[in-house]
Order: sequence, then structure tokens, then C-alpha cells
Amino acid sequence: MIDNTAMYKISYGLYMLTTTDGEKQNGCIVNTVSMLTDNPKRIVVFVNKSNYSAELLKKTGIFNVSVLDESAPFELFKQFGFVSGRDVDKFAEGSYKTSENGLYYLTEHANAYISAKVVDRLDYGTHTLFVAEVTEAEKLQDSKSVTYEYYQQNIKPKPQAKPAPSAVEKWVCKVCGYEHEGELPDDFICPWCKHPAEDFERVE
Amino acid sequence: MIDNTAMYKISYGLYMLTTTDGEKQNGCIVNTVSMLTDNPKRIVVFVNKSNYSAELLKKTGIFNVSVLDESAPFELFKQFGFVSGRDVDKFAEGSYKTSENGLYYLTEHANAYISAKVVDRLDYGTHTLFVAEVTEAEKLQDSKSVTYEYYQQNIKPKPQAKPAPSAVEKWVCKVCGYEHEGELPDDFICPWCKHPAEDFERVE
Repeated sequence: MIDNTAMYKISYGLYMLTTTDGEKQNGCIVNTVSMLTDNPKRIVVFVNKSNYSAELLKKTGIFNVSVLDESAPFELFKQFGFVSGRDVDKFAEGSYKTSENGLYYLTEHANAYISAKVVDRLDYGTHTLFVAEVTEAEKLQDSKSVTYEYYQQNIKPKPQAKPAPSAVEKWVCKVCGYEHEGELPDDFICPWCKHPAEDFERVE
Repeated sequence: MIDNTAMYKISYGLYMLTTTDGEKQNGCIVNTVSMLTDNPKRIVVFVNKSNYSAELLKKTGIFNVSVLDESAPFELFKQFGFVSGRDVDKFAEGSYKTSENGLYYLTEHANAYISAKVVDRLDYGTHTLFVAEVTEAEKLQDSKSVTYEYYQQNIKPKPQAKPAPSAVEKWVCKVCGYEHEGELPDDFICPWCKHPAEDFERVE
């Protein structure tokens, strides 16, 4: 038996991943960054293939990871987590600087950034696992890194308090907070964060 | 410039990894477990090759991950983190049950366990990256998963309050708390957790 709620007990941080197509830059939110080896310093990042970032990483192989801290507002997650950079310039607002590799990193709501260069790219169906060599890293401040659990409990908007039961079902995506009204089909995909129907909970 | 303190801002959980040589079981503490894909449900775990567990995983390919919670005492980390299972039966004490794959999982100080079967094994120098398919998963309780940051701040013993400066240098390993007296050679390796001299800080 595989109980999905057991999988939710794994701890993750949250990171802004910045990439480039050679000219325009793109950013997205990822939750899986971890150090693989200390010497040489290598990190691993998983990216959903439906993200534009996965395409750019495959093309240019360089990226920055900004480690988000607990001050990061929901708007940041919404803009970089649930909107595609294919159509929008996500860096129109916000505080960014450029690291040695020419890519942006976040200077607000982040406590460190890491620049890296892909050395291996492994295909696992819906996701690509990138192994990358760290080329630059800097701590920006002492603030606490945000965890996915902290995001769930303190950053993501809470569904409205329940009014009297209505005839219309209301469902909320547990990942991003998107609200859906009416019956939820089994093959429903969240239009914001692309998570499946099983990540929704009924609130009305 | 690569600033090591930037790397410390990455968030990790802490997990007990149980493996077997076919007869005897072994356990060790790891900090890198993450879900790679949801369908099929696959997780990734990195294991230091100097750990006996890496050897057993290579041999039998099955393991359990117990997700440790904030109640886990330092003794657990010491027993499973810093002592080799080559010589000692680490499961002589403690609360364990056996999952369908025949391996132990922790029932106390853990809030979930995941059983998995290795599908890919990738060699990265000091560490092996294992990609594994989840075969069983169960949530055990609602307690909060422990993060590496929580371990550092609340579980690892604090060095003694500083007495008057003495002629003898005293160094403490920032990872496990091991105390070393006297000069610390550059190539020093922590006898408990195998981290290098750069992870020590001088306290006297």
C-alpha cells in the first residue's frame, strides 16, 4: 500500500531557479535542490519537463538557484511558480542582481544563491534530474530558509472560512491554493501549478 | 567565489535508511531523500560510499526510509549516524517493525516510512545517487518532520560554555558535535561523522 500522505512527510526547501535561452531569462520555483558531493561541489535539481526552465536548461546548461527565505510572499510563488515564462517577462518587478554567469539571482526574500553548470542530465518521464557543478555561491543574509511545510502553513492563502453548505462543490489545490468550483473530474489538472486532482481537497 | 555558508542554506530533512545484506540489517542517517516523479512514484537518495549502507544497497537494492520527527534524540543520530554497522548490531534497542519487504522501519521518533527498490545507481565520486521505485508507504503520525536546521539548533548538544581561555585549543564538529582537543590538522576527518576539518569550529 502506498499512502500519499507519507510522501508529504519528506522535507523540502523552496528555490527560485533562473535560466536563460541565451538572451531572455526565465525563473521558476522548484523544491528539490540538494548537495550531492562536496569535492567537487555538485548539486542536484529536479525540474518538471512541462516547465519552460527544463527546456532552457537543456539548451544552455547554466542556472542560478536563489534560496528563498521565510519572508517570501505568496505573490512571488504565484508569479514564478504558476505562470509560464514562455509568454511573460517575470523579472519586470522585484530585486535582482546578476552573478558571474550572467544570470539573475534574487536579492530580496532569498538568503543565498548558487550558480551551477549542468554536467549530467537524466530523463525520468515527467521530470529531468540535472546534476550540476557549482561555479559560484554566496550567502546573502542570515534569515531562515523557507521550507515547503512553512509555505503550506504560513504563506499559502487559507481557503475562506466555510459558509453554510451550498449546492456547488468547491475544491482547493493543496499545493498552490487554486480554487475550483463545481465537480472535480478525475483527470483535472490545476491550471496554476499543474498538480493532479488528487492534490485537491473539497472545502464546500 | 564559492562560499560554503551559502550551501548550508539548502534545506534537508533527516531520515533513517535501513538496508540488508540478505540476513543482517543495517541502518544509517541520511539527509537527502526527495520525490523525483509521482507516476511512477520514484524517490532519490544519496549515500556516502564510505557508509556500509551504500555497499548493501548495491548488493540487494531494497531499502526503507523512516522520516525522523522532531522528537528524535541525539542518541539516535549518534548510534545510526556515526557508528558503522559493519561491527555493531544497531537495532539491539529501539522500536521497530518490519514492512512488506522484510526490512525494519522506525515506529518511534518517525512520522512515516517509505519502502523502495533501486532502479538506477549513479556513481558520483564520494557518493552514489540511487533512484528507486516506491513499493510501500505509510504515515505513522502527524508529528513534524525534523529538518537538518532543527537538528543543528535543538538536538545536537551545544559546546560547553566557554571557560577562561586555556592554552589547549578546542574544536567542535559543526555536524555532529564531536569535540577535538589540541591543534586541528588540515586533513583532519571527524571520527564520528567523517566530515572534514573545514566543518569544525574553534570554541577555545
